[in-house]
Amino acid sequence: MGLVKNLGSELFIGIDGGGSKCKAVIVNRQGDILGRGIGGPANPFYGIDRALSSILESSKSAINDAKLPQGAVSSLIAGIGLAGVNLPALYEKLNQWQHPFGAMFLTTDMDIANIGAHDGNEGAVIIVGTGSCGFISNNGEKRMYGGHGFPIGDKGSGAWLGLKAIEHTLLAIESYEFEGILTDKICQFFDVNNGISLSEKLVGKASQHYAKVASIVFDSAEQGDRKAIEIIIEGAGYLSELARRLLQKEPKRLCMIGGLAGYMLPKLDKDVRVFFEVAKQQPEVGAFHFALQQWSQEKTNKQGAIA
Amino acid sequence: MGLVKNLGSELFIGIDGGGSKCKAVIVNRQGDILGRGIGGPANPFYGIDRALSSILESSKSAINDAKLPQGAVSSLIAGIGLAGVNLPALYEKLNQWQHPFGAMFLTTDMDIANIGAHDGNEGAVIIVGTGSCGFISNNGEKRMYGGHGFPIGDKGSGAWLGLKAIEHTLLAIESYEFEGILTDKICQFFDVNNGISLSEKLVGKASQHYAKVASIVFDSAEQGDRKAIEIIIEGAGYLSELARRLLQKEPKRLCMIGGLAGYMLPKLDKDVRVFFEVAKQQPEVGAFHFALQQWSQEKTNKQGAIA
Repeated sequence: MGLVKNLGSELFIGIDGGGSKCKAVIVNRQGDILGRGIGGPANPFYGIDRALSSILESSKSAINDAKLPQGAVSSLIAGIGLAGVNLPALYEKLNQWQHPFGAMFLTTDMDIANIGAHDGNEGAVIIVGTGSCGFISNNGEKRMYGGHGFPIGDKGSGAWLGLKAIEHTLLAIESYEFEGILTDKICQFFDVNNGISLSEKLVGKASQHYAKVASIVFDSAEQGDRKAIEIIIEGAGYLSELARRLLQKEPKRLCMIGGLAGYMLPKLDKDVRVFFEVAKQQPEVGAFHFALQQWSQEKTNKQGAIA
Repeated sequence: MGLVKNLGSELFIGIDGGGSKCKAVIVNRQGDILGRGIGGPANPFYGIDRALSSILESSKSAINDAKLPQGAVSSLIAGIGLAGVNLPALYEKLNQWQHPFGAMFLTTDMDIANIGAHDGNEGAVIIVGTGSCGFISNNGEKRMYGGHGFPIGDKGSGAWLGLKAIEHTLLAIESYEFEGILTDKICQFFDVNNGISLSEKLVGKASQHYAKVASIVFDSAEQGDRKAIEIIIEGAGYLSELARRLLQKEPKRLCMIGGLAGYMLPKLDKDVRVFFEVAKQQPEVGAFHFALQQWSQEKTNKQGAIA
């Protein structure tokens, strides 16, 4: 555990390893934020080495911002949230990392987002960005719903909305029913006028690429495009169902977070929409709370063993 | 053009560069098959270098089988059908290849499949294997329908059937409505009992991986699984529509080919099903016909220029 001393003056680093960037925050035990840092993409699905170097990059920048010497990294207690850590093979790999921190506690991006949204307390979230999923923490038990990734799951997410819009556009082009607002906007966005060119722009592309056109689906729906409205209703229906399943578990609070939350929340069924509250903190602050919880528990266990 | 002589005794090599293997056939001008060869996977989407080396491998093995010296390769007139060659960027790249043949004529896998199915003549095909598409050649004009690839297109194909079955299984697991024949068989096939493990088996996987469970969808439908039946009806509905669009163009013949043709043809609407005839030849023989046509045309053009 390196230089970490048991004096109640520990420093923590909370890290949110996202797909487009990695955010770090240095926090003392009382929860005061001492510094913030940022690094490159840290989704381990697109390269574990890149994710780890982005984590280090964000840590260095946060240490600088907190006006600490870089050597302080070895006494920081790190909480890190990363996509895919719920997959056993990936968790194993990442836990073997020879990290520079005093201690490291690893969990999913969903877990830290949930802890952050409730500022260290339990509750539930629906996350809707490039992907979608539900997450609940209740009486120490954590559970994820959905979040199975692109293209098989993540209904109602940005990538899913984009996939449905593009599928529809290809069929529309093919059947010469090629006059909808949605199909026009999709073709305009990708600068294409036929199915082959559109498919060429998408072959082998990751979910982020599909999520780019999610806002087009909302724009088109607002302008009355029937297919866009239909896609949003289907996605929102799934998310309403997801909310109902979370509410059955009686979470202490419920939030919707992620890049599409502002678009999607108003589309949910009214009976579930009323339960949603505003998220309190960002995921990286959630990662700090996670590290604090795990660290305190580890200390308690050790003291128990000594006593 | 190397050693090719204009004596009417040219030898041709027809090559079908498929996703799982590459097939080659050496044919004389009269259409007699002199040798057959086989090579590794040759789908340029999964590595152009690998595709090219599989093409060479299949050529060498066909030359051997025809009891020709390996040096004969430089006088062979090659017709090659490859997936994705309809995408301009890929066509450009492949056409720059420093190939060893006397001449090389490149076209899509669909084109040679269509020419093969009608033994050198014009007609139309619906190809249903891992992917799906329609193709027609009529009065010298060629056109493709669908074939936009996974996961945005290729409705009714093996990969599409698999994708729909897996999407359904994930939703079923999540909502505890987890007792269907289809969902049971999918979980059994992937040896999983929860959504996370199932998504872990599929993350980042190519369409072939999804197509592996296509036969499970048919099995489940036969045993009465409602969702499996619904998926097949949707896929077959699209293929029936595709057939109608091809029939509007009045093709001389119409065939259904590919690994799932035997499964899917009986599911098509009866009014279109009656138009389908049996394919006459394999795609690699179609590639020979393509080479012969292109070569003859080139010669005619040259003679025209001289006269």
